[in-house]
Amino acid sequence: MEVFKRVPEHIGIIPDGNRRWASRNKLDKKDGYKHGINPGFELYEMMLEYGIKEATFYGFTKDNNKREKGQRDAFTKACVDAVALLSGKDANLLVIGNTESTAFPKELLQYANKRINFGRGLINLNFLVNYDWEWDLKRLMKDQQLESHDIPRVDLIIRWGGCRRLSGFLPVQSVYSDFYIIDDYWPDFNKSHLVDALSWYQACDVTLGG
Amino acid sequence: MEVFKRVPEHIGIIPDGNRRWASRNKLDKKDGYKHGINPGFELYEMMLEYGIKEATFYGFTKDNNKREKGQRDAFTKACVDAVALLSGKDANLLVIGNTESTAFPKELLQYANKRINFGRGLINLNFLVNYDWEWDLKRLMKDQQLESHDIPRVDLIIRWGGCRRLSGFLPVQSVYSDFYIIDDYWPDFNKSHLVDALSWYQACDVTLGG
Repeated sequence: MEVFKRVPEHIGIIPDGNRRWASRNKLDKKDGYKHGINPGFELYEMMLEYGIKEATFYGFTKDNNKREKGQRDAFTKACVDAVALLSGKDANLLVIGNTESTAFPKELLQYANKRINFGRGLINLNFLVNYDWEWDLKRLMKDQQLESHDIPRVDLIIRWGGCRRLSGFLPVQSVYSDFYIIDDYWPDFNKSHLVDALSWYQACDVTLGG
Repeated sequence: MEVFKRVPEHIGIIPDGNRRWASRNKLDKKDGYKHGINPGFELYEMMLEYGIKEATFYGFTKDNNKREKGQRDAFTKACVDAVALLSGKDANLLVIGNTESTAFPKELLQYANKRINFGRGLINLNFLVNYDWEWDLKRLMKDQQLESHDIPRVDLIIRWGGCRRLSGFLPVQSVYSDFYIIDDYWPDFNKSHLVDALSWYQACDVTLGG
């Protein structure tokens, strides 16, 4: 195991490329999502090893709901299954997303806006489910706090699938984040991805804009 | 001149690396900023050629004001000189930043929160001067609109100097932006930088999160 002189406190995970992975493997696009669950679990185990204290997974967004029903069902199920797989382990789980819309899966209501602690509570794992950056900011306008106010500043954002953008991921918590892009698709997750990202991150000069 | 099948409407410019450029050239750090003015003018002329309709330059921020006085004076003067150089040409100029602080240069008050049109008005050029993302969002909380509400969504953000982060650049307008990072320092601006960025951008699939 590599030793890093500095690891991020909080990592943002944008697990993109599931549909492109499916097409490349001659599968229906919607069938990519279920191949993204095991990578999430592998990543969780690696983050424990490296002493990462918090991670936020970009599940799905209001924007994603514009896709066809088969895909919507598939990415929703993948989120539900991922949270189920990680519950009962050693992570404290929190789901942030608009629960007032029918697109929010009932199975995850128990984790919505309320962190549930499991086992030794070694890491905080947050999932953005039916998240919408505008909804997040509207609450700021109304109540002077974000809907996602329980999620702190993100130090490092890792995005799979090659696109170099945030796609609405936590705009306020990302103002000082460093971005690391992996060209491989998320279902092709490989341990070297996180090692490379952490290796790159330790050399970044964190100034918080100063 | 290259022909692109699709150019961004609005480019964000993060001209970083002035101090590192100065150190590498055995100059005092503060002396890097003045070498960043001419690159801005070259970039302006190139953007006209390529039909870019709007650009926002990251001048300096409240966070930057934590630096020593010599540097503060130098980056403030560079912003004032850059705007002066571009006034009277064919651009419509707008400055967004906290004018209530003494760090805001008086010379730029005439452009603050009010766009001034020059010549043929071929491009909108915005400058963030004494900008602060928290100040921008506080106005959203108070008046239901950003301080930077006159600046629209940014399509492509180009950052010089190798760091892969936003450093507080317009968090709301950047939610869907594509990021292009140039390792060279800003004073080493070269025409190929913009050409490479536009060439990369035309191949990005713009989905606005969908």
